[in-house]
Amino acid sequence: MSRQYTVAVVGATGVVGREMMSVLENRKFPISKLIPLASARSAGSTVTFNNEFIDVQVLDEQSFKGVDIALFSAGGSVSKEFAPIAAKSGAVAIDNTSYFRMHDTVPLIVPEVNGHAIKQHKGIIANPNCSTAQMVMALKPIHDAVGIERLVISTYQSVSGAGKDGMDELETQSRLSLGGGDIVNKKFPHTIAFNLIPQIDSFLENGYTKEEMKMIEETKKILEDSSINVTATTVRVPVFIGHSETLNIQTKKKITAAEVRSLLAKMPGVQVMDDPANSVYPTPRDVAGKDDVYVGRIREDISTPNGIELWCVADNLRKGAALNAVQIAEVLIRENVIA
Amino acid sequence: MSRQYTVAVVGATGVVGREMMSVLENRKFPISKLIPLASARSAGSTVTFNNEFIDVQVLDEQSFKGVDIALFSAGGSVSKEFAPIAAKSGAVAIDNTSYFRMHDTVPLIVPEVNGHAIKQHKGIIANPNCSTAQMVMALKPIHDAVGIERLVISTYQSVSGAGKDGMDELETQSRLSLGGGDIVNKKFPHTIAFNLIPQIDSFLENGYTKEEMKMIEETKKILEDSSINVTATTVRVPVFIGHSETLNIQTKKKITAAEVRSLLAKMPGVQVMDDPANSVYPTPRDVAGKDDVYVGRIREDISTPNGIELWCVADNLRKGAALNAVQIAEVLIRENVIA
Repeated sequence: MSRQYTVAVVGATGVVGREMMSVLENRKFPISKLIPLASARSAGSTVTFNNEFIDVQVLDEQSFKGVDIALFSAGGSVSKEFAPIAAKSGAVAIDNTSYFRMHDTVPLIVPEVNGHAIKQHKGIIANPNCSTAQMVMALKPIHDAVGIERLVISTYQSVSGAGKDGMDELETQSRLSLGGGDIVNKKFPHTIAFNLIPQIDSFLENGYTKEEMKMIEETKKILEDSSINVTATTVRVPVFIGHSETLNIQTKKKITAAEVRSLLAKMPGVQVMDDPANSVYPTPRDVAGKDDVYVGRIREDISTPNGIELWCVADNLRKGAALNAVQIAEVLIRENVIA
Repeated sequence: MSRQYTVAVVGATGVVGREMMSVLENRKFPISKLIPLASARSAGSTVTFNNEFIDVQVLDEQSFKGVDIALFSAGGSVSKEFAPIAAKSGAVAIDNTSYFRMHDTVPLIVPEVNGHAIKQHKGIIANPNCSTAQMVMALKPIHDAVGIERLVISTYQSVSGAGKDGMDELETQSRLSLGGGDIVNKKFPHTIAFNLIPQIDSFLENGYTKEEMKMIEETKKILEDSSINVTATTVRVPVFIGHSETLNIQTKKKITAAEVRSLLAKMPGVQVMDDPANSVYPTPRDVAGKDDVYVGRIREDISTPNGIELWCVADNLRKGAALNAVQIAEVLIRENVIA
């Protein structure tokens, strides 16, 4: 594959934007030119890519001329305005924000799970919510084997899901907590240091947060089965990187823990880490900086005839965001979906 | 009520023991004499009670002579050996360890939930697991109203549940994480600073931990209904004080979120803190040092016809341990169950 591509990264100075460039570099993505884009606030800054300094350009309507692939991670309103412009300019926009995810004409893709749906794209492809992406990796083989009837999810989500400001707030508040001093809450509605916040994104009429409804709706779209019953409670925890989830899965047919372990061991991008006798199970510290989704605590649910419990952990900046977006771009190329 | 009582606290130098004495003091428990007991390791130390220094005595078989009430929180093996000795000496032993909880002849009590069962005691009364105690406070009015069919629990448990060593380990590791330096894991099987550990207590054959099975079994015993189906995943989080739980409750009959809110508002010892539009819900930092159990995020589960989701937070050293033990002693006196 000798062809090389011009790739734009929108939101290049953010936590996910930087991770996207790092993933492109590490995976030796065939790039002829990288164009880092950001808002006027970041004008004058530079990024490093393949040992070169590249000036960050201010995003505007002309930014996508000659661009083949545009990776977006600069907030929903930026994607809303500029992803269609990128698509009209001939690029494929791969959008990490929630804006287009539930649009009927926009495929919502986790390559290992529903990569085939990429072909339906009309210029924009959506990257799922971080918590959803890692979860569907663990659910897919189970759903294929026995069908998922109902899912009860609780999340333990790291502050990097809220970007660099979230990471800074945890660090600053933790230092103040340990050293003494007045804690100020800026990024989060409550103090996050040595605390938990059972709110991610804003609340809806039904009492769920938008984050929870994203997990519920996106799971059905990616698994291509609207009959799955899903509920979720999403909680911010004082961890820097790595989202964790308890997944309680009721299945249509009985499946044993051993069968689930064996199915997950065969799933590309999933690592089974499950040896409780030796305290082996994934923790966010273990998986930060890793590409795969880690699953442990696999056991049969004793409260229901057909139930499985899992503990699922992944780097939310990788599989939950940057890695998955780059993997989508790789499928575009491999399957000749891109011009 | 003019009579006063001789009260022994076994494990007086531990986190829960100290909290027991603080609760006895704050609630003006009618004490004529406080006897702090501990192992030989704590010999020579003193505790403060009602502005007096009291020497800690080394626990032995003679320790309970003349004692009316003995509060135990020094580990299961100490309770196993010494609670029967206390009972034989004429005291009522109120045991905070797990050792006697599931014994048929030992009542397992949360006063607001099943205080009536105290009368069946034969010298030993068990205090539930911290996570169970706060949870059954929220479940009781719902179970009475519509019947609970199935419960899926995920916990977010603070390090103080593992005692002073647990709190010290979180503090030390957090400082090292922020300042640089090698982290050593002593109390917990993995690093807890800025991390999560999906293991509390040891693992059983069925893949659950002992902590999870405690929640499952104790809930049925306290709610006096072995037909409730319960599953749990218990997770240690980097929080100093306060346990949090997501409770997914499937009920036998439909109940609305408004009805649950109204039932919980009437439950003694429960505070409803539930105004999502203003980001009002309990967090562990809010409830540390408070007696009540706080419930928020009350909503109807959209994945099932009869389901309720709750977020339940309490000070694990108070309602989860010391407060509940002292409340049991108060019922003993109020109901003349004690000689």
